[in-house]
Parts: sequence; C-alpha cells; structure tokens
Amino acid sequence: MRPPPQSLELTQVTEWSSGAVSSVQDSLVAEEPLEIRVNGVPVSVTMRTPGHDRELALGFLFTEGIIDSCEQIEQVDHLTTKTTTKRNIVEVRLANADFDSTTLQRNFFATSSCGICGKATIETVRRRGLRSPNQSFRISPEVLCKMPEALRAQQALFDRTGGLHAAALFDKQGDLVVLREDVGRHNAVDKIAGWALLQNRVPLSDNVLLVSGRGGFEIIQKALAVGIPVIASVSAPSSLAVKLAREFGLTLIGFLRGERFVIYSASHRCLPQSGDYAKAS
Amino acid sequence: MRPPPQSLELTQVTEWSSGAVSSVQDSLVAEEPLEIRVNGVPVSVTMRTPGHDRELALGFLFTEGIIDSCEQIEQVDHLTTKTTTKRNIVEVRLANADFDSTTLQRNFFATSSCGICGKATIETVRRRGLRSPNQSFRISPEVLCKMPEALRAQQALFDRTGGLHAAALFDKQGDLVVLREDVGRHNAVDKIAGWALLQNRVPLSDNVLLVSGRGGFEIIQKALAVGIPVIASVSAPSSLAVKLAREFGLTLIGFLRGERFVIYSASHRCLPQSGDYAKAS
Repeated sequence: MRPPPQSLELTQVTEWSSGAVSSVQDSLVAEEPLEIRVNGVPVSVTMRTPGHDRELALGFLFTEGIIDSCEQIEQVDHLTTKTTTKRNIVEVRLANADFDSTTLQRNFFATSSCGICGKATIETVRRRGLRSPNQSFRISPEVLCKMPEALRAQQALFDRTGGLHAAALFDKQGDLVVLREDVGRHNAVDKIAGWALLQNRVPLSDNVLLVSGRGGFEIIQKALAVGIPVIASVSAPSSLAVKLAREFGLTLIGFLRGERFVIYSASHRCLPQSGDYAKAS
Repeated sequence: MRPPPQSLELTQVTEWSSGAVSSVQDSLVAEEPLEIRVNGVPVSVTMRTPGHDRELALGFLFTEGIIDSCEQIEQVDHLTTKTTTKRNIVEVRLANADFDSTTLQRNFFATSSCGICGKATIETVRRRGLRSPNQSFRISPEVLCKMPEALRAQQALFDRTGGLHAAALFDKQGDLVVLREDVGRHNAVDKIAGWALLQNRVPLSDNVLLVSGRGGFEIIQKALAVGIPVIASVSAPSSLAVKLAREFGLTLIGFLRGERFVIYSASHRCLPQSGDYAKAS
C-alpha cells in the first residue's frame, strides 16, 4: 500500500539529541485545505491529507446527512477550468439541481430552542433516520485482538511521518479490507465511507471499523450512517460516544490492546454467551 | 488540580481479558456540545468536555479572529433564563452591538476565487494581522525535555479516562503555569487562550505551549493569535503547520521525547549558538 505521492513532503529539520545538534531530512504528512462544493455551492473546507479526495468529499456529504444515497450523485471530481485542475476543490454534482445549502446548518441549530445538550444531539441523529446496525453480526474476541497489529503492519508502509490518523475496515475473519490515513481523524473515517459508497458496499453490515484515535461522538455518528455494527479503538471513547452507541445498539470497543479490551455497548456481537459475567468491582 | 465535577461520567462496562469476562465500573471523559453565541447570534457548536466553558468561548472567538481584543467583551457567561441556566450555551456580549456574523465565513471562502490552497490559507492568517512572536525569547533544551513529564504528572490527576487531549503553558524556567484538558485537541488550546485573555496575559510572549496531540495548522494559528513563541509536541507536525510556523518565525518542536527533539522552525530560540550544526544525512 503505497502512499499517494502528494501525501508526503520532505523537509530539512534540526535534531537535538542529548546536546548534539544535527541537520536531518524529515518526511512530513501533507496537510492542505479541501473545499467541497455541491452544485457549485461551497459547503465545507476541511484540512486534510491530499489523496482519496473524491472519497473524502462523498463520505463527508453522506455521513453528515447532506446526501442520503449514492444515486443522488451525478458526478464527483476535482474542479477543472479551461486551463487547470484545482486539486484542492472537489465539485459534487447532484441529480436534483435544487440542492438547498441551508440544510447544512439545520442539524445543530434546530436544537437551540430547547437548550442544546447531548440528548438533543442524539435526537438530531435519530431524526436523520439512521437505524441500528446489523444485529446478527458476530465477531470473535480473538479475531478482534489481532486487528491493531494488522493495522500497524499496513500503516508502517505509509506512515513514515508519525503524524497520521488511520481508519481501517476489517471483515469477520479479521482480514483488512481497506485502510485510509489522514492528518484529520474524521477525514480518515470519511474516506472509508466514501470508498464504500463508490464500491456500492453501503451498508457495511458485516464489517468492523478500527480507528487509531479516540472515539468521539462524531466518529460513532459517521459509522452509524454507513451501517457499521462494530467500532474498535485502542484508546477511550467519550461519554456521548457511549450514549449514542447504546442508543443505536452499535458495539463500541475501547482499549483494544494485546489480549484485552473493554466493551461499552451491545456486547452480544463479541460475547456470544452473555450470561457468564463475573461481577468485579 | 481536580477535574471539574461535570467532566467525568461513571458507567458500567464489560471487560474481556484473555477470555475472562467481567463487568467493571469505568470513568468516561464527558463530551457535550457547547453553543457559542455572540450578541444573541449562534456562531459555533463545538463538542467539548464541560468545564472552563467561558475560557473556551473567549479563546475560540479570539484565536479564530472573530474578536480582536478583550476590550470588545462586555460580558461572557452561561445563558440564563428566568428559571434555569443553560450549561451548554455560552453567551458573549460585545461592546459593539452591530457584530456582523457574516465575518465568520469570510476567512476561508474569500480564497475560493484563486483556488484554495495552503499558500492562500497562510495568506488568510497574514491578513488577520498576526505578527511574529517575541524574537528574543529563549528556552534551554534541557528545560524543554522536562516538560512532557511535568505535563503527565499533572494530567495523571485529571485524566483517569485515557480519552483527553491536554495543552499546557510553561514558563522559561520550565514551571507549568496552566493546564487544560478536553476531548477536543483544539478546545484544550482555546481554553488556554481564553484563560490568558481573562488573566490579561495576552500576548504570551514568554511561554512555551506543550500539546499532547499532533501539531496541525490550526493549532499553530491559534498559538500565533495569542503570541506564543514556542510550541512543542511529543508527536509530529503537518506540512502546513511547519510552513506557517516558518512564515511567522514561531519555534515549532516535535517528537519531544526523553533527551531528544526535532526543531522545524526558528531554532534560534532553543539553540543559542546556531553556528555549530553537524551535517547529517
């Protein structure tokens, strides 16, 4: 898995090591703004690592609820003018030409009247019509425990910079299906979502999503949008991420390290016999 | 340094460890939306860890260039109605009542005509009138190397959750001045900025900012806004973060681990005699 050429930049830096100073060459993860336009209207600017831009644009529009299905999309590509291609602008053409950009603000600000809170935020997700992911999907704990290593093995080829977030999709057997990396954590997940849309694989009813960073509300929301039943992370989720996962019956796993992990919600998918809990402190 | 009571939530979770299943109590980092209103107009909703909300609101408005100075602020507090306090809405009253909320969109979308790019993004920061931080500030490499441990020692008291980002301000002697933590990396920096504004300490000309996560463009932009001369991180910066730091002569340090670090820009602040480089590969 070679990184897209524009996703790394070389530069000369100064290293200090126990008092010794040297000038060394370093690989930096590229960060550039991407403007996403829908039917000519700019709807978002996100700082991202160049590469897989079409996936990022589609994934963003879909997981944020701006588009509902791939069938709405007529075309998605970098903006081209007569003389050049703008590699930091992706233009999405929707079939329904009367796209209303004011829907973008609706999600959050609709809740203002009641006093914005976590409960209202979850209610907003519910109003988007997102449903509980595949209840019959099962994944074995042993298979789960091998995923972080599989991710790192693939990531090592790409991440020479130490500055990238990763998101990867695994199948039931623990095989890595697709990996995306980005300077932004949400972007890595959006790139996965966009990949799935372009492959016509949504909903991702039989997959596990592994993310490198912390699990926040927005990551869970994006995973729900593409129908993922299990999200795992090597780190901790937030309170609102756990609430949202419980509300929708999505299996949320944290601290996946070595032969141990914590299940925050819908444990039946990775604990087939859930009757045998030992009560601990 | 005790965490604000609302920043943690307890919950019951399931632990899987080498085949043994148990039910344990876990601390989650709280995540709730915060709506920031300026003169009654909602300008932003950010997912944050409750606590230090006034600092977060002020820091956000200042580092994003929505307000230019603390003197513009008449009042900042949680919204109160006749019967209740909305703890997820902070209302900022500006002295100039004719605040124009359309300025919020101006920053990025002004660049569309030329094709948005990293160069244009840096130009946007330049147009905000941000200046190079204190050129005469110096920090010794040995003092720098002790900062991550000092941060962790303080953070250990607060972060029982494994899910928090930290930002901390240090003085020239390596003493920790203030630490803020949040589920969002940018929020931790905004809380520091807001603290400095409320303390009337801006510009922070004689301080080092240490951040727990990766150094991206927006972190550098926020640091420049409050005049910080040195930013350090235990991880890697992005290409655009390095470009912005070099453009403004801010000292950017990465991979600060043990007795080693990498200097990406303006190395004179931590290498007093910059003539003695040994050229390495």
